[in-house]
Formats: sequence, structure tokens, C-alpha cells
Amino acid sequence: MIERALCEALLERLFPINRSLTGPGVRQTLEVLSEVVGLTLHEVPSGTVCYDWTVPPEWSIRDGWIRSEGGDTIVSYRESNLHVVGYSVPVSGYFSYDDLVPHLHTLPARPEAIPYRTSYYRRDWGFCLSHSAFLRLDPQATYQVLIDSTLDPSGSLTMADAHLKGSTGREYILSTYCCHPSLANDNLSGLICSVLLFRRLAALPAVQHSYRLIVVPETIGAIAYLYRFRDIMKQVDGGYVITTTAGPDRPGYKESYLGNHEVDVAARLALGDDHIPYSFAPSGSDERQFGSPGFRIPTGTITRSKYYEYQQYHTSEDDLSFISVDRLLQSLDTYWRAIGFLEANVTYFRREDHCEFQLGKYGLYPDVGGLLHQGFGDRTTVGTAWPVDFDQDQLTEAFAWLMHACDGDTSLLDIGQRSGLSPRLLAYAAEQMQMNELLDAT
Amino acid sequence: MIERALCEALLERLFPINRSLTGPGVRQTLEVLSEVVGLTLHEVPSGTVCYDWTVPPEWSIRDGWIRSEGGDTIVSYRESNLHVVGYSVPVSGYFSYDDLVPHLHTLPARPEAIPYRTSYYRRDWGFCLSHSAFLRLDPQATYQVLIDSTLDPSGSLTMADAHLKGSTGREYILSTYCCHPSLANDNLSGLICSVLLFRRLAALPAVQHSYRLIVVPETIGAIAYLYRFRDIMKQVDGGYVITTTAGPDRPGYKESYLGNHEVDVAARLALGDDHIPYSFAPSGSDERQFGSPGFRIPTGTITRSKYYEYQQYHTSEDDLSFISVDRLLQSLDTYWRAIGFLEANVTYFRREDHCEFQLGKYGLYPDVGGLLHQGFGDRTTVGTAWPVDFDQDQLTEAFAWLMHACDGDTSLLDIGQRSGLSPRLLAYAAEQMQMNELLDAT
Amino acid sequence: MIERALCEALLERLFPINRSLTGPGVRQTLEVLSEVVGLTLHEVPSGTVCYDWTVPPEWSIRDGWIRSEGGDTIVSYRESNLHVVGYSVPVSGYFSYDDLVPHLHTLPARPEAIPYRTSYYRRDWGFCLSHSAFLRLDPQATYQVLIDSTLDPSGSLTMADAHLKGSTGREYILSTYCCHPSLANDNLSGLICSVLLFRRLAALPAVQHSYRLIVVPETIGAIAYLYRFRDIMKQVDGGYVITTTAGPDRPGYKESYLGNHEVDVAARLALGDDHIPYSFAPSGSDERQFGSPGFRIPTGTITRSKYYEYQQYHTSEDDLSFISVDRLLQSLDTYWRAIGFLEANVTYFRREDHCEFQLGKYGLYPDVGGLLHQGFGDRTTVGTAWPVDFDQDQLTEAFAWLMHACDGDTSLLDIGQRSGLSPRLLAYAAEQMQMNELLDAT
Repeated sequence: MIERALCEALLERLFPINRSLTGPGVRQTLEVLSEVVGLTLHEVPSGTVCYDWTVPPEWSIRDGWIRSEGGDTIVSYRESNLHVVGYSVPVSGYFSYDDLVPHLHTLPARPEAIPYRTSYYRRDWGFCLSHSAFLRLDPQATYQVLIDSTLDPSGSLTMADAHLKGSTGREYILSTYCCHPSLANDNLSGLICSVLLFRRLAALPAVQHSYRLIVVPETIGAIAYLYRFRDIMKQVDGGYVITTTAGPDRPGYKESYLGNHEVDVAARLALGDDHIPYSFAPSGSDERQFGSPGFRIPTGTITRSKYYEYQQYHTSEDDLSFISVDRLLQSLDTYWRAIGFLEANVTYFRREDHCEFQLGKYGLYPDVGGLLHQGFGDRTTVGTAWPVDFDQDQLTEAFAWLMHACDGDTSLLDIGQRSGLSPRLLAYAAEQMQMNELLDAT
Repeated sequence: MIERALCEALLERLFPINRSLTGPGVRQTLEVLSEVVGLTLHEVPSGTVCYDWTVPPEWSIRDGWIRSEGGDTIVSYRESNLHVVGYSVPVSGYFSYDDLVPHLHTLPARPEAIPYRTSYYRRDWGFCLSHSAFLRLDPQATYQVLIDSTLDPSGSLTMADAHLKGSTGREYILSTYCCHPSLANDNLSGLICSVLLFRRLAALPAVQHSYRLIVVPETIGAIAYLYRFRDIMKQVDGGYVITTTAGPDRPGYKESYLGNHEVDVAARLALGDDHIPYSFAPSGSDERQFGSPGFRIPTGTITRSKYYEYQQYHTSEDDLSFISVDRLLQSLDTYWRAIGFLEANVTYFRREDHCEFQLGKYGLYPDVGGLLHQGFGDRTTVGTAWPVDFDQDQLTEAFAWLMHACDGDTSLLDIGQRSGLSPRLLAYAAEQMQMNELLDAT
Repeated sequence: MIERALCEALLERLFPINRSLTGPGVRQTLEVLSEVVGLTLHEVPSGTVCYDWTVPPEWSIRDGWIRSEGGDTIVSYRESNLHVVGYSVPVSGYFSYDDLVPHLHTLPARPEAIPYRTSYYRRDWGFCLSHSAFLRLDPQATYQVLIDSTLDPSGSLTMADAHLKGSTGREYILSTYCCHPSLANDNLSGLICSVLLFRRLAALPAVQHSYRLIVVPETIGAIAYLYRFRDIMKQVDGGYVITTTAGPDRPGYKESYLGNHEVDVAARLALGDDHIPYSFAPSGSDERQFGSPGFRIPTGTITRSKYYEYQQYHTSEDDLSFISVDRLLQSLDTYWRAIGFLEANVTYFRREDHCEFQLGKYGLYPDVGGLLHQGFGDRTTVGTAWPVDFDQDQLTEAFAWLMHACDGDTSLLDIGQRSGLSPRLLAYAAEQMQMNELLDAT
């Protein structure tokens, strides 16, 4: 319940903020998120070269509008931060209709929606407005235009991260982006899902693997992060790029560039069969940077109404009414289950690898022969973060698979895929065997 | 006919014997089987440690019954050896109904069937009886109970094997288990099928590969055998665990843990498409030991009414009326065809590996060009143990595939899978080419 | 048009010539083809040993007929060169019906067709005639027979080739056979398609890869060519055996022995989904020699009415009316597209392999964010030999895939298969990136 309340509060506080690649809106957003998980902020000065890219000047905007000759406000930044093209340079003056039009962006196909547009790397200015408002403009008229913005070459780009240290050598990233203004599914839903997910992880007594939460502006932020932390990031094993988690469509999964990496297996187990599969493509979000040849970090994305796939995408109609807290929390639970399967993904070897163990000696086998494969035994539930429910037959089956497969090369996710057993049950069974000094983790 | 008569006689003589992990019933069974194939017996003393296991005391039983106060015999070992739980410790005395019940095993779902139960590794005693007989017991009555058994720590476990030496370095095991009392499909049918199969092999003038018949009590016997002959067994290439061969259901095949090993390919070729496929699982029989990481011997199982899959399994209803000699002999023929494909599975290389051979020079090709691929030529049958029937087109196709594929790495089973030709036809064609010094076996 | 006229002229001039393994008809054919592409001729003396084969004597024939007692000509070589069995030894004399019949070949199933038969390696003579003509022979009559032929042990077998040098180290063969007499689809159509294809290649300003046109008698010619040029041929990467390109059936593709080699991928892309797939088999044509273990050159075949698959195959009914110039030119275009995909099949690596490039800096990306994935941009066509038509979205997608996948190991055909993008579009995009010093070819 407290998580749901937190989710609702975050949506309300963060939606109105004008985020962009850089600027006060990003910092304000990260401050709010820092109340949920302990974030470390990193400032990257404008002008810093990161591989093929240069961090742009810091953008801030105070106001922006178009007014008619009569002084009526036609569009206003204060009404919707989508109205001003992201990274618009300052402008102030009077424009004829013909001179103004090249600076206007509309979506004729969705006439009431304000589109979301940016011009990060080409100095320009512009306004986005609904096509119906555009049609009401008078071609004979002159318009007064103001964009009160700053592009500060002495500014910086702000990144944030948090880290949890596990006991295995494996590390997974949970990455999201904080550069979109008042757009709910893409990507306020991803921001909130990410911090709530990391909050759950941080509340565990211990984690098997290490986890790194990364909150950055899309593309340039991910690139700057990879550049600054390149030695660390080259050691990362995989992860998820968390975005568009709360729209009305069925759950979906965009696979990593490997397609069958452990992050993919875990996500599909968490989702079950009934989800929309999306093949990998080097489009979308920061999987483009993480998966690039120099890093090759496989990342997947669990979504509800994936970017590109809904009509309201990148318009003012991707607002709080488009998403729901229920769906955001369902996506959170799905990610949580996926991480549970990654946590289960230990690789064991048998101390003595010839024949089966005599499990009865260790109290791991029913005493009377001939009972198995008849669904016997009460059902038991073990585990708190990721509970698993099983009967004695299934546990015995798990022991049998572990004895067969634990050769030091085959992980519990591998064994789960082969056997059809839950990796969480296998993990529980493996712990029982490890306590009896039958198995060891590699 | 003599094989059928032998099968019938073995069923009749062996069914009544009370077999268990150890004891006189096992030895008596192996003596009878020794009349069919020359078996070598190995005694493993009770108390011998084999990996994680210890060979249990030798169990023998002379009598066992429950009598009413009035002296009526309610269950009697002499009526069915299933009535006494296997490895029951001796007991003699009077028991109230309430004290007796924890020692009784019934199957409410099959009220007329006596279940089969054992307690090998926990000292206990018990009786198995039909649920309907159980319901007739008087909760107010006292019962006299006798189990006249011995658990001899100076006894031994008896194993048997036989070996045929082939000319290649490859060895296959044919393994079965002799520890089940009067149960027909599981596993008297497997015992008899195994020895008849090995008898056929032993009657051949020569075999390509080596074959090892292994007759042992399930689990502990297989483990003791693997332990004693571990150096030999680590060299074994694969094999079959022969069990449940004569029930009323369709033929089935449980694949080896590899799934596509030569023993699997051969078995599937022998069965044809119309059979029940069973995925590998580390349950069932001694594939659990053979396939364990320290040995990794892939074994499959060709069955009729596979263990676990029929209602009569491990009950008194798995009797001689449940099985049939016809089906047992059909399973025998299927195993025989499978072994025929393994025998065909030689790997050849070409002495001169550039271009095709001029087959006409060797009399291996029709003289007049333009005739091929029109189904010409009379049909011919070659081979006695595993006859193969083909026409000239198919033989020419076999030569062509051999010339293309014999690179020293590709076996005739591989070529058979690729080409769709029978490995037996390929073997015949390869022998023709070898006689002409075109091919050599690796 | 000039290509179509050339094709028509070649069909007309070459169809009547009596080709065989050796002899004047082969040389005459190669002379005509030399007018189209510059061929180098190689003579291999009769008696030359090539691996398991010996080049046969050179065969020439001047006349051949069967006459009735009344002097009527029943069959005549001058009427159809199929009438005389290829490589018939000379014969002159009178034969009873019974003595003549063993030398006669007919096709009862196609009573008006003259079959095509040869006896290259067994000294024999014979006539092929329609079954209806055969039935009109008089069993009581005597027939006069003449075959005026020569088998010259001092002759030679004639081979031809042409070579185009490319800039990569890869070489592909385009091979066809010139040993069939007046048979149109098999294989005059293949001969003409091959030289027209090579003529197109030779007209290009440059080629990426090297190409070798090989025109040889089937089997013994391919073997002699492989033998003489074995050092070169062992370096060849793949190719096509061009045959039966103009029959009435749907396009088909016989895959190489590898099945998924780049020549297979290119051919299937060129054909599209709607074609008849033929699995590899070591029958057919010279793929038997090229693919043999000593060479292992994967070759595929794009066909219309593949050999073996049509009733007129190897009969007088495989004449000019069976094929069409349109279909021959369609096959030529399909091969051309396949070669276009091979030409696109360069492997690139990124100079800087971390993260994406900032494509906007190089003019390779739209300026305003948020437009992608909406099918925007005008369609553009680039390329002359192999034009490709795309919009801005597709080009941007191509850049994204190149940035993701160009790791120095992944070819553009690989990327095309993964992404679904045309390898030609990828090649165009890669050239743009190479010009901007972002990519280099391996």
C-alpha cells in the first residue's frame, strides 16, 4: 500500500516538471527521486566530448508564447511545456504568418494533440500546437512570439545512479531516462517503476548479484555515463532499459540483441506466455548505446504500450489519464519476478559427481519407495521476496535435475528451461543440497 | 519360434520369484537367465561404500502374514510376494488395529490392487493389501502379525553382466534391472527382452561395436556396477535401459539426456514416426546413474506402457495378463533394428577425396547414361541380420552421398539423417566401396 | 533489348550443334560464346588422368542412320543428333531385327520423343528413336546400319573460362556445361544465361569480388578443370552451377551442400519467397565435383524446370519450343540480383566502436527529433546495376543496424538477414558511413 501511495505521489509531483536533456527540470526530478532511493548525482560539463558526441549547453526556459495582434495568447509554455520545441533558442519579435509557419509543428492525424519535438543539436526554435489551433491562425495576421530560454555553455548534464553490491561477480543495470517533459507513459512511468524496483532491491537483506540503477537523459546521457564509467560498464552482464510501463495495452517484451540471454529468459518467465514479443532492433532507447560493439551489454524492456506502438506516443495525449497506477505496479511486479529469476541464477557443481546422491540420508527424499510421480505431499511455500509454492514431487524432481545437471557449467536458469521447473524452486532445492555439502556454487 | 517359446518359458518360470535389491530371488533369477546367455555374476558385500551409497544388508524372507483373532489369514506372503513391504525387518506379535494401520499400504483409487512398496534404507516393516481387504478389517480387533525375514550384514548384492567384443572402439550398454518381485511389465518384460536381445547379438558371426549386458538391481545395483567398473564405464559410448517392453500401449521412446545421440537416432529410425516421444527427465530408471555428470553415458528406453504411464504400474495388476508375448517380441525386434543401425554407424573417409569416383570402373554404376532418377533396376535385398531392400537408383544415390560426405567426421547415421537413406543401405554401399579400396573406416 | 536479341541469336545458332564431352561441336559452341565474352580455351589431351578419371578419346561423328531393306531411312543423325547414342563407336553392316534391338533406346512412356543416351566409358554403339517409330520396325526384316564416327585417342577435351578480378579476396564461380547436344533447357539455356551474366559483370566499372566463368563438359570436364586448376579452385568461396533456366515451371532453387551459405542467402533474396526449394543432394550437375571433400565449394542452382523435374528432360521434346527467351532473361535477372547481394556482402568494422555515432554531424540524420518511425521522407532510388529504393526511415534504420552490428565479423548479408533490410540498402548506407570515416571494410 505504501508503495502504491508513493507511486501516486510521484506521478503527481513529477508529471508537471519540464524535463529535457539538461537543465533545472532534470535536477528537480532527480531530487524528488532521491527521496525514494539514495541517488548519487554526476554533473558532466557542457562541451565534454564523449566518444562521437559533445555534451550540449545546458538549456533552461522560463516562458514561451505566441500572441495574436489583439494580444490573445495562442500557445503558452505555461499551459503545456510541450508547446515549445525542446532546446529552442531564445526569440522575441513579430512574425508574419508565412515566417512563423516553418517554426510550427502539428499532427494533422491527431488534430487535438500537441506533438513533442526537440532540436538538440541544430540551433533552432519552434512551437508545437494542436492542428486544430493551427488551422485557426490567420494567414494575413502578424504574431508576437517570445521564447525566454537560455543555452548555457558553462552548464552541465546531470546523471544519477545507485549501486547495490552482491556476492557473485555478476552485475545488472536498471536504466531509465529522465529527459522527457510532461509525458506520462514515455517516460514518467519508466522513471517511477525504476526507482520503486530499486527500492525493493535495496530493502532485501542481501542480493546475489550487483545492481546498478542508472537515471540519465536518453542517448547523450547514456553515452556520457558509459564514457565516464566505461571500465565498470564493460564488466556489466546485462540489464533492463525501463520505459513505457503503464499504458493500456497488453504487456510486451523487447528482447536484448542476444535474444536468449539470461535477462531475456528471466523476463519471459516473469511475463508468462501471454505477452507481445518484440524482436530486437537497434532503435528505441538506450539499448542502442549499451548494446553497441564496444560495450555489448544485452538489455531488454518489459512494457505496457511500448514506445512507437501507440497513437498518443510523443504527444500531449500521453498524459496521466493514459496510464494507470495499477498497470505501473503490475509492470513493477513483473520486473521484480524477472530479477527474482536472475537472483536464482546461480551455477552449481556437485562435490561428488558420480551417480545420484542417496538423498534419504540427508532427509531430502521420502522414506517409502514407490510413492513418487503420484502428486503426493502437501504443498509448501518457501521464500519471502519471491515465494515459490510446490509439492514433494516437484521438490524431488528439482533434486533429480540438480543431481543430473549441476556440472559447473549449467546455471539454474538453464536447468529451469530444460526441466520446466521454476528456477526459484531449483534455487531452494540447491540451497538444501548446498547446506548438506552436496553442491557448491561456482 | 524357439525364441517365442523361450520367452514364454522365461515368463512362466521367473514371474513367481520374489526379487528384491538382494537375496536369493535375485540369484535364482540370474541363474535362469544364465541358461539363455552366459552371464558373469559379481557379488558386492553388504556395507560396501559406492560413492554416496552403502550396499544394504542382504534381505531374505521366508514367510509373512496377518491373521485375525479367529486364525483366518488376511494377507499372506505366500499368496503374493507384494503383500510384504520390501526389506521389511522381522516382526512377530499381536497388534491392535490402530497399531497395525501405520504399517499398512493400500491404493484407494484401485481398491482391488495390492500396491508394491519398499523400505530399503529405513528399517521398517509393513504389509501391502488391497483397499477393499483393508476396509474389511475390524477396528476393534487385534491381529497377529508375522514377518519371517533376515537382513544379513554379511550378505551381498548380486550383479551380472556379459560382454561381446567388437572391432571398433565403441561400446554400448544394454542395461536392465532385476529387483522387482512379481510384476510383469515392470520389469520382468525388460529382463527377458534384454537377454533375448543379447542372445541375438551373441549369435552373430561378428559385431562392429562392443556390447555389454548389465543385469543389476535398480539404483544401488547400477551404482555398485558403475563404481566397481568405473574405468570401463567411463569409456562407454551410450546404450539402452531396457524396461517395460510388453504393455498394451503404443510403442514409446524416452530419449537420452542428449536427445539426439546416435542411440536416439537409431531408436527413432527403428520405431518409425508412429511412437510416443518422451523427453528426457532424470527420473525413471538407471539413466539417472549412467547419465550423471561423472559418467555421462547417454541411454534411451524403447517401451510399451512406460513406467509411470499406466494405472497398473507398481501394483499386483501388472501381472502376466497385462503383458503379451507378441508385444514383448515386437519390442525386441525394435531394439534389434536400433542395434542394426548402430552397427551400421561406421565413419568412413575417402582414400582420394577430390571429385567423384568413376564408379563405372568398379562396376558400381549403370553403363548407359541418362537412366538415373527414373526408379529403374530390380529390387535387391541384402543382409541377413538386418536385411535391406533397395533398387539400383537408391544404391546409386547411396554411393553419391558416400562420395560427398565421407570426410572422416561424418558417420553413416549422420549421412542417413541428411539423405533420408537407410543407414543399412549406406553400410552396404560403403562395404562395396571399401572392397574397391575407395573408402576406409576411421 | 540488345541482350534479348543476343539471347535469341545465340539460341538459334547454338541449338543445332552436336555437342558431346569432346569434339568439334564443343569447340564450335565455345567459339560462338567467345563472341559474347572473352573466353580462354584449355585443351586437355585424351588419356590425361584426373584423380580417379581419365579423359576419354575425342569423339566426332559425321553421319549415322538405319535403313530398311528397301532403302528407306528410318532414323538419321542428320535429322536429329539425338538419334545416335553419344560416343557410339563406328559401325557399318546389316543387322537382323533381333540383333539390332539391343542397340535401340526408346521411351515407351513418351512414344513420340527421342531419348538422349550416351555411352562415354563403355565402348558401344546405339540409336535412340521414338517408341512409335520402333513399333513400326519389322521383326522379320534386316536393317542396314551406319555410324560414321571416330574416337581419337590423340584428341582432347576442351574447357573454357574467363576471369574478373575484384578487390576483396573472395572469388565465386559461375559454372555451366557444354556437353549436351540439341537439348534446349538442359542445357543450352544454362550456357546462354551464364555468358550473358558474365557479360553484365564484365561491363561493370569494378567488382568487389572476383568471378570465374567456367564452361566445361559435365562431370569429366569439371573434374579436369578442378584437377588442372586445383590450387586456384581450393581458394574459391562458392558459386552457382547454371543450368535449366528457361522451362515453363516456376522458379526454383537447389541449395548448396551447406544450405545457408552466402550463395544460398543471396539466391533466396533474389528469388523471393515464391519459389520451389530443392534440398541439396549430391546428384544433379557439377556441384557433385565442386562440393566433394577435397574442394568443398558450395554452389547453388537457380532454375526454371529443373533437370529431373520435367517429362521432356533428356528427350527431343526439350527443344526450343519448350523454353522461352522471357524466362531465360528472368533467370538471368534473378542471378544478377543474387550477384548484387554477393557484391553487397562486405564486412565492416566501426573505427570507434563505443555507442552510436552522432549521425546529425555528418548529415546522416534528420534534424528534428521525434519524426522517426512514421514512414517520413520522400522515397529515393540509388544504384545503377542494382538499384535500391528506400525512404528516410529505412535509411536511418540501416544506419542504426550498421552501428549496432559492424564488429568486423558480421557481413552485410548477415545484417540483412537479421534486420530484414535489403543488403543493397545496407551497402549504400555503409558507403555513406565509410565516406564519413565511420566504417571501414575488413
